[in-house]
Amino acid sequence: MKRCAIAVDLGGTNCRAALVDGTGRILAEARRPTPVSGGPTAVLDVLADLTRTLKERAVREGLEVLGAGLGIPGLVDSANGVSRFSPNLFWHDVPVVAPLREALGIPVFMENDVRCAALGERHFGAGRGLDAFLCVTVGTGIGSGIILNGRLYTGPRQMAGEIGHIFVAPDGPTCNCGRTGCLEAVASASALARFARQGLEEGAGGLLRVWSEGHPDRVDAALVARAAAEGDEWARSLLMRAGRYLGVGLAIAIDILGPMRVVVGGGLSQAGDLYLDAVREALFRHVMPPLAEGTELVPAACGPAAGILGAATLVPGLVEEAQTA
Amino acid sequence: MKRCAIAVDLGGTNCRAALVDGTGRILAEARRPTPVSGGPTAVLDVLADLTRTLKERAVREGLEVLGAGLGIPGLVDSANGVSRFSPNLFWHDVPVVAPLREALGIPVFMENDVRCAALGERHFGAGRGLDAFLCVTVGTGIGSGIILNGRLYTGPRQMAGEIGHIFVAPDGPTCNCGRTGCLEAVASASALARFARQGLEEGAGGLLRVWSEGHPDRVDAALVARAAAEGDEWARSLLMRAGRYLGVGLAIAIDILGPMRVVVGGGLSQAGDLYLDAVREALFRHVMPPLAEGTELVPAACGPAAGILGAATLVPGLVEEAQTA
Repeated sequence: MKRCAIAVDLGGTNCRAALVDGTGRILAEARRPTPVSGGPTAVLDVLADLTRTLKERAVREGLEVLGAGLGIPGLVDSANGVSRFSPNLFWHDVPVVAPLREALGIPVFMENDVRCAALGERHFGAGRGLDAFLCVTVGTGIGSGIILNGRLYTGPRQMAGEIGHIFVAPDGPTCNCGRTGCLEAVASASALARFARQGLEEGAGGLLRVWSEGHPDRVDAALVARAAAEGDEWARSLLMRAGRYLGVGLAIAIDILGPMRVVVGGGLSQAGDLYLDAVREALFRHVMPPLAEGTELVPAACGPAAGILGAATLVPGLVEEAQTA
Repeated sequence: MKRCAIAVDLGGTNCRAALVDGTGRILAEARRPTPVSGGPTAVLDVLADLTRTLKERAVREGLEVLGAGLGIPGLVDSANGVSRFSPNLFWHDVPVVAPLREALGIPVFMENDVRCAALGERHFGAGRGLDAFLCVTVGTGIGSGIILNGRLYTGPRQMAGEIGHIFVAPDGPTCNCGRTGCLEAVASASALARFARQGLEEGAGGLLRVWSEGHPDRVDAALVARAAAEGDEWARSLLMRAGRYLGVGLAIAIDILGPMRVVVGGGLSQAGDLYLDAVREALFRHVMPPLAEGTELVPAACGPAAGILGAATLVPGLVEEAQTA
């Protein structure tokens, strides 16, 4: 009987669920908007609906469902199945695993969504077969998952990997966390968009001015990357500066964790070679020289599916089964 | 039969060896100047002499010697028993374990000296019984040992924990490693002494001017700490600035590794509450807020013996035996 897991990628906008097999293939998928304003109960009801539907489908198709794995934004207490704090969902200490286990009647596991992305890359992407690497997701925020000895390292009290909030820019803007100088405030996709909008408001020009047609709020990180790809000098300088800051942050993480592969995922990782080369150049300039040897930076390979694939691997037996089959 | 280990703390100036029992008691000790200028052979001969003498003494006193553990400065390949690179000893790829094993006829183990200090604190000092903590040594340089899951974490290729070379001071002086902005270049004991000497040469005053009697080169970190303890304003500001930089570096390490106890050892850790409070204040100001909870900073408890005690625990059976006895 072919085995699979139900995987969930819960975001602030959409909630995505899938049936995933042990080779990382998505057998079926369903998604719904996340009813954030309805509070935890409304969101958990949607999760229960989505996953129950997928479970019934799996049974109809003769698949054995080993369990469900969930990727949740924010601080997660995976041992107790509780979302400790999720700014995107406005959640504080919300039990997630227990109600879902009751609704589904199968084992349920959860982990932070960025760490799930690291697990996805570990089993099916750019970290396949590696014992140790750092997987950084650069999107609205900057998060990371650390793989050590082939497993997710979450640290004492499950709060390791907060690379987005390390202090790298003494003169940087205030971060969402309330402090100044965080990596996330100068190198995330939203930081890049904010710098571009500020520049437009202060009279900067180029393609971004033409494309935004007097509406700086239309500019996002993807548009900056597109303008940079077309050769726009200002967009290039903005993109490369964000990349250099990320490189500094990654160098610091490597100094502490030891040399390893760094996998860069999330929206900005799609910004092209100009961006990744700026990251790489700053990383190798700032990492301690003997640590540079054996360190490499590569883009993520699973794309937006990394999180949901990784969430599936939280279910014991899914990946091992496939690896030995 | 009471068990013990031979422990060695090899420094650029002195080489210290001891018989250590499983409770961290030093039963006998011997030391000799390190003949650095004689090259690796001369140093290894001294090590063999010192440890052989201690082994004979142990046998005379009816002790069972389980093996020898060595703490060596610089990059260490502990799996192969080789000193990869030690600037203090001018060593490059020097096999250490094999010649000593031959000389002593017992199992020999080695590790970086700062990591040995972390192990010393883990078993007999400020990290006793803790599963996870960071032990930072602030002396001529700044190094760290990371304890995770109760064991030393050395990372892929045994190069984790290089906290002294993380980039924290964009306008800082050039570091010994050749780069700019390293924590070590602004927060180590030698950095503190250098800032004081520079200040004196540029006309700064206070107690340090009086005490140094026109010889700025007489000023070291201990003297700055003494002047600060006497209330000298300039010395206080120098000491607190070094402490604040260290706090920033520790906050970054905590963001990445997760919250844990931080043990501060080495010469500067003796500089008093003014210094440790400056470190602590900066650490908690810069660490990501949810990570601050559960994090604490304490001074090391083993003093200068931390390294040699930790080196002893490299020998399998020494500590477990004592812990269950």
